Amino acid sequence: MTTLSWIPSANDGRTHFSLQNLPYGIFSTSERTPRAGVAIGAMVLDLAVLDEAGLLPAATRGTFAHATLNPFIALGRSAWRETRARLTALLSEGDATLAGDAALRERALVPMAGAAMHLPVDIPGYTDFYSSREHATNVGRMFRDPENALLPNWLEIPIGYNGRASSVVVSGTPLHRPNGQIKLPNEARPVFGPCRKLDYELEMGFIVGHPSALGEPIDVADAPAHMFGMVLLNDWSARDIQQWEYVPLGPFNSKSFGTSISPWIVTMEALEPFRRDNPAQSPEPLAYLRQQGRNAYDIALEVALKPAGAADATTVCRTNFRAMYWTMAQQLAHHTVSGCNVRVGDLMGSGTISGTTPGAFGSLLETTRNGAEPLTLADGARRGFLEDGDEVVMTGWCQGDGYRVGFGEVAGRILPAR
Amino acid sequence: MTTLSWIPSANDGRTHFSLQNLPYGIFSTSERTPRAGVAIGAMVLDLAVLDEAGLLPAATRGTFAHATLNPFIALGRSAWRETRARLTALLSEGDATLAGDAALRERALVPMAGAAMHLPVDIPGYTDFYSSREHATNVGRMFRDPENALLPNWLEIPIGYNGRASSVVVSGTPLHRPNGQIKLPNEARPVFGPCRKLDYELEMGFIVGHPSALGEPIDVADAPAHMFGMVLLNDWSARDIQQWEYVPLGPFNSKSFGTSISPWIVTMEALEPFRRDNPAQSPEPLAYLRQQGRNAYDIALEVALKPAGAADATTVCRTNFRAMYWTMAQQLAHHTVSGCNVRVGDLMGSGTISGTTPGAFGSLLETTRNGAEPLTLADGARRGFLEDGDEVVMTGWCQGDGYRVGFGEVAGRILPAR
Repeated sequence: MTTLSWIPSANDGRTHFSLQNLPYGIFSTSERTPRAGVAIGAMVLDLAVLDEAGLLPAATRGTFAHATLNPFIALGRSAWRETRARLTALLSEGDATLAGDAALRERALVPMAGAAMHLPVDIPGYTDFYSSREHATNVGRMFRDPENALLPNWLEIPIGYNGRASSVVVSGTPLHRPNGQIKLPNEARPVFGPCRKLDYELEMGFIVGHPSALGEPIDVADAPAHMFGMVLLNDWSARDIQQWEYVPLGPFNSKSFGTSISPWIVTMEALEPFRRDNPAQSPEPLAYLRQQGRNAYDIALEVALKPAGAADATTVCRTNFRAMYWTMAQQLAHHTVSGCNVRVGDLMGSGTISGTTPGAFGSLLETTRNGAEPLTLADGARRGFLEDGDEVVMTGWCQGDGYRVGFGEVAGRILPAR
Repeated sequence: MTTLSWIPSANDGRTHFSLQNLPYGIFSTSERTPRAGVAIGAMVLDLAVLDEAGLLPAATRGTFAHATLNPFIALGRSAWRETRARLTALLSEGDATLAGDAALRERALVPMAGAAMHLPVDIPGYTDFYSSREHATNVGRMFRDPENALLPNWLEIPIGYNGRASSVVVSGTPLHRPNGQIKLPNEARPVFGPCRKLDYELEMGFIVGHPSALGEPIDVADAPAHMFGMVLLNDWSARDIQQWEYVPLGPFNSKSFGTSISPWIVTMEALEPFRRDNPAQSPEPLAYLRQQGRNAYDIALEVALKPAGAADATTVCRTNFRAMYWTMAQQLAHHTVSGCNVRVGDLMGSGTISGTTPGAFGSLLETTRNGAEPLTLADGARRGFLEDGDEVVMTGWCQGDGYRVGFGEVAGRILPAR
């Protein structure tokens, strides 16, 4: 039987923020500056207030009053575990410590609707992988060779590249359509102007919780212990800028104008019940990438698109994180095998998550075949790529028995180019 | 006539650290934790001590006692200028403020030989460009098509990619030869093991001093005002790992195992006398990249290679930063034109600096034609690529009339693979 909370909105079976979840974020209210909180039902639990009241583990003292979660995350796994256990106890039905203290409850619980969410971590490094076989195949088919869509290195390497950390923003931050160089097919030289093929990419990302030293690779078996939690990630992409710039050093301006993440970090502990068997991999990877155990995660994902002024959003993608070919553990082992170090707060994007059918593709590039087959939305609008005013909302959750462990959403609206 | 310092070692005409230079760094001694200093002749001037003595501009109060220069740099250009003017006065022949105070002088001046140097800035983002036409042509010839060595986008875009900031280290930090995936020509699958084609890349980098906001591009004319100073940079590269991994998302493990920079940041103010006319560019760049003024810099550069146990280092490259095709101002304008923001301390690498002849090529890949034409060193050793124990020392300086404004060196030794 599922344990319930004394906060009713946590128990409806549909909320992303059940007692089983307890994701961490940074929030502020009109009265208070940014600090750490935990989502529970329709409320945010103020951890700085709980800390001041002496209700949290001694090891975490003072770490929740900051504008980033890094000080807490840096404490390490035993502190994460102890805090989760304490919060679970404090919020469980029958526990009167907080539930029975009306004055403290009043100060510690803030309605989510009244909380402004901020970037949850300071991100010293952002890496983006490319780990969906379907996505890599779809893109290779359009951008390169339809006959040899998957490049020879793809089945050997969890391909990744360094992204731009400065422009990672929290859900809800609008982004201007980027300007850039675009090479039109019949012109000798590129033109400069607003992107004409603006796209989203449905991704997830994990946050590094335990660092590694320069020159000391993380073994694939140890990699899960280095992860603090996960977020939803929208890797906004300017396809026309990308196509012209990306050879030979990879995407740059086409991606660096903004990357959105969801505000709540769902911990690996909360995701534990949703681990699944490792994906089948053929050929068997090289030894440093071979893994035991269950490193896939069953996370349902959706993308919805809402034009400015439309009454409703239209769901344009339904897929599952479980479909990824390379696991997060393999990504981290590969990232560090050269000796590259990782730091607390590093963000590792999964790459676009695409299933096998167009309704499960994680980008418009794939769904509309580079704009050639536009989508028709609920109100009749058609979209090959994103238009100004469009809002993209991604959501994801794990379905438990009578409860959900969800990520909330990552949303962003496109403003006109400057 | 050149102004002299009352510190004799600053006046010999050969030191990199003349009164005209005054570069900033972070140093520590056996007695004191890391703090800011300025190099002058064979000495380091302790800025935290000067600050405590009330000799520095009021605006800089407290900023020099930190383990990074970011707090000082973040104060902005007027503080940089005022501080430089004050330091120039304090160190000039005839000024008795510091020269005449034996006790203070004793505390404030540390012999460089007794100072350990640290990374001078916290680097929130590291970007590496690819702005030498000769280098891009040489690499394209070997890795891609000899007939069309320069890719079509190269003459339009100051090509760059996001590097890995976590593994940027200060000169003197040894690095292990990286392990990674290598695809041998006659094998169906890659092997895993130590890099067999380990290389250096002679680069320079500039440090962003004035940030920009997300969505607000920096105009090419304003770009120089965003730069604090420059360093030498060695972009260590594992060529065999790079060749197998880099398509389609760019270099990753082949570069992220370590990037070395020189400890002293030479300010743009100190480099002002060495500005030169903009490079000739054909075709004329798109409007957002068109620049007036003098954005090239005359900086002599050398690379020396010293095998373990060798009596002498051998100079293997002599070139000049002035040879770059794209300027730093164009790099920064391009980087931000999509709306990408930059932050204080961001490091922007130039890309390998190669001249037109093999003796002026900035990497072994080019100098030895991918190992096919090994170099012979002073002691008879031959090198196609780097061997374990090899030390690479890069240096650079501007030659003034009777003085130098130099960068010191960036050095690093290769340890065996783990």
